[in-house]
Amino acid sequence: MALQNPSQMTAIEITQPGGPRALKPVKRPVPRPAASEILVHVKAAGVNRPDVLQRQGHYPPPPGAPDIPGLEIAGEVAAVGDRVQRFRVGDQVTALVAGGGYAEFAAVDESNALPLPSGFGYAESAAIPETFFTVWHNVFERGGLKPGETLLVHGGSSGIGTTAIQLASAFGAYVITTAGSAEKCEACLRLGADRAINYREEDFVKIVEEATDGKGANVILDMVGGDYIDRNYSAAAIDGRIVQIAFLNGAKATANFSKLMTKRLTHTGSTLRSRPVEFKAAIAQELESKVWPLLAERRVSPVMDMIFPLRDAWRAHERMEDGQHIGKIVLDVA
Amino acid sequence: MALQNPSQMTAIEITQPGGPRALKPVKRPVPRPAASEILVHVKAAGVNRPDVLQRQGHYPPPPGAPDIPGLEIAGEVAAVGDRVQRFRVGDQVTALVAGGGYAEFAAVDESNALPLPSGFGYAESAAIPETFFTVWHNVFERGGLKPGETLLVHGGSSGIGTTAIQLASAFGAYVITTAGSAEKCEACLRLGADRAINYREEDFVKIVEEATDGKGANVILDMVGGDYIDRNYSAAAIDGRIVQIAFLNGAKATANFSKLMTKRLTHTGSTLRSRPVEFKAAIAQELESKVWPLLAERRVSPVMDMIFPLRDAWRAHERMEDGQHIGKIVLDVA
Repeated sequence: MALQNPSQMTAIEITQPGGPRALKPVKRPVPRPAASEILVHVKAAGVNRPDVLQRQGHYPPPPGAPDIPGLEIAGEVAAVGDRVQRFRVGDQVTALVAGGGYAEFAAVDESNALPLPSGFGYAESAAIPETFFTVWHNVFERGGLKPGETLLVHGGSSGIGTTAIQLASAFGAYVITTAGSAEKCEACLRLGADRAINYREEDFVKIVEEATDGKGANVILDMVGGDYIDRNYSAAAIDGRIVQIAFLNGAKATANFSKLMTKRLTHTGSTLRSRPVEFKAAIAQELESKVWPLLAERRVSPVMDMIFPLRDAWRAHERMEDGQHIGKIVLDVA
Repeated sequence: MALQNPSQMTAIEITQPGGPRALKPVKRPVPRPAASEILVHVKAAGVNRPDVLQRQGHYPPPPGAPDIPGLEIAGEVAAVGDRVQRFRVGDQVTALVAGGGYAEFAAVDESNALPLPSGFGYAESAAIPETFFTVWHNVFERGGLKPGETLLVHGGSSGIGTTAIQLASAFGAYVITTAGSAEKCEACLRLGADRAINYREEDFVKIVEEATDGKGANVILDMVGGDYIDRNYSAAAIDGRIVQIAFLNGAKATANFSKLMTKRLTHTGSTLRSRPVEFKAAIAQELESKVWPLLAERRVSPVMDMIFPLRDAWRAHERMEDGQHIGKIVLDVA
């Protein structure tokens, strides 16, 4: 480790499972990078729904991950492990981490870090990894979305939603999305959605059917669950793929599975955090070759909602739970 | 058409939706083969669960298919269409048909017919297509079962079950099955199942967990549905595939989908009957190259339950609905 790095840092701890105020700044030792890891001096950290679940005590960190919340960071390389090949002290990187993002320093396997996209600062870059890794894997790899196909993405104004709309649109899909207000629907349309459905006023099953000439959606990205599951089966096309990445409305639900069989649907899902470093590295490579150029051209970019100082992480969670945000909430760790 | 073929034939009609007695012998015109079709002088026809559903009025024939029930036949080629290349009058064939099997003659695209497996008579051959096409597609193609993986197949003593046990075992999978009596479990074990679970006495989720050192089943072939769906999610391994081919216990069910997401399961399903001729032809080719040799060596073979005369088709249905059968019920059309 470089000599100038401090031994102590500020990090945000979950003092006990509970409301946003459970997030408190504390002093922690600066992590020591393993041989294949880089130590990142964090400048900005993204806030994600799983952080909220973790704070509430519903989503414990996977074995070996830090107890500090935070799944994505951007910053400057402050030290490198013995076997690190790509990055050097001083490089600007953004990275997906299995935890520990809400802190001044974080260690991460170098394969899970990427250079900042050309023209991007730290705050925007910290808003990229979690949603871009998640959308890439679930929509394109797991869901197999192809140009010309229809994607239905729920929660269109969320971090995941805004990323899915832009990426699917950039790769030539017809994009339908759901959101909870006229303002959010407007935002989704500006991002490239072909049709935005205000789920408080319209039935997405009916609208998808109309918008696709009765064919239905080829891929559905769902983080809602609950009664959306049966409705997704109704809204899906023959041979459609439904990818489940969360359950904001609950994971236990009743469905008519005859639609799954007769339409030959594939209902699957995944979580990113618990996957091995090698798996995330493979996604990172795909993103760098296929998506980083689109970011550099600003054909896609993270939608920024608000930025809070690190020590006000609780306010960031409050905002996410209020559900008024459009796009990404980020912590400034400067 | 060859001149010697009659213009009328005996076929079994569903006089009106209802019980087994709704099946009545009637006179119908002998079908005329289209250019790519062969006319088969049927000697034996397999009986399948969808025939029962069709008789009850729950499973109408797909557009263009005959109203006469029966999805698989074996017999002698009696005439050939103008563009038929492979078969000649007098050839012995077995075929998958979209309907019309319960009759003295049936027309079928030549690509959906295969020569009788070496050493097989008509009755046994008529018991092959429906279950072998179904199992091949759903277990190996859709489910992607690989050697060394664990298959859980429900309804192990059914036509589908006995075929799945034998094929999965022949291709090197560890096979666990469920059946409704000690006698049926015995039959499954004799066919090559590594573990047979009497579902009236044992919980298959628990037994699968024990038998796989807690790993679960990689592929589950399910025709039961109902509360089995949530239990399948519990019994499945990480990255497991669950293939739904029917719903004997109902298609509407409540499940905890968090298991589907966290284990990255794939829940899918399909029906064979409505698929295009080309799709079935592709399966036929796979079966001829990979499974016909196993049949010729008697490493796998259809399990024969009982044979009824064509005009007693109602008795065949009664037996299937009684649920006492082990393996295939066949109609003798000689």
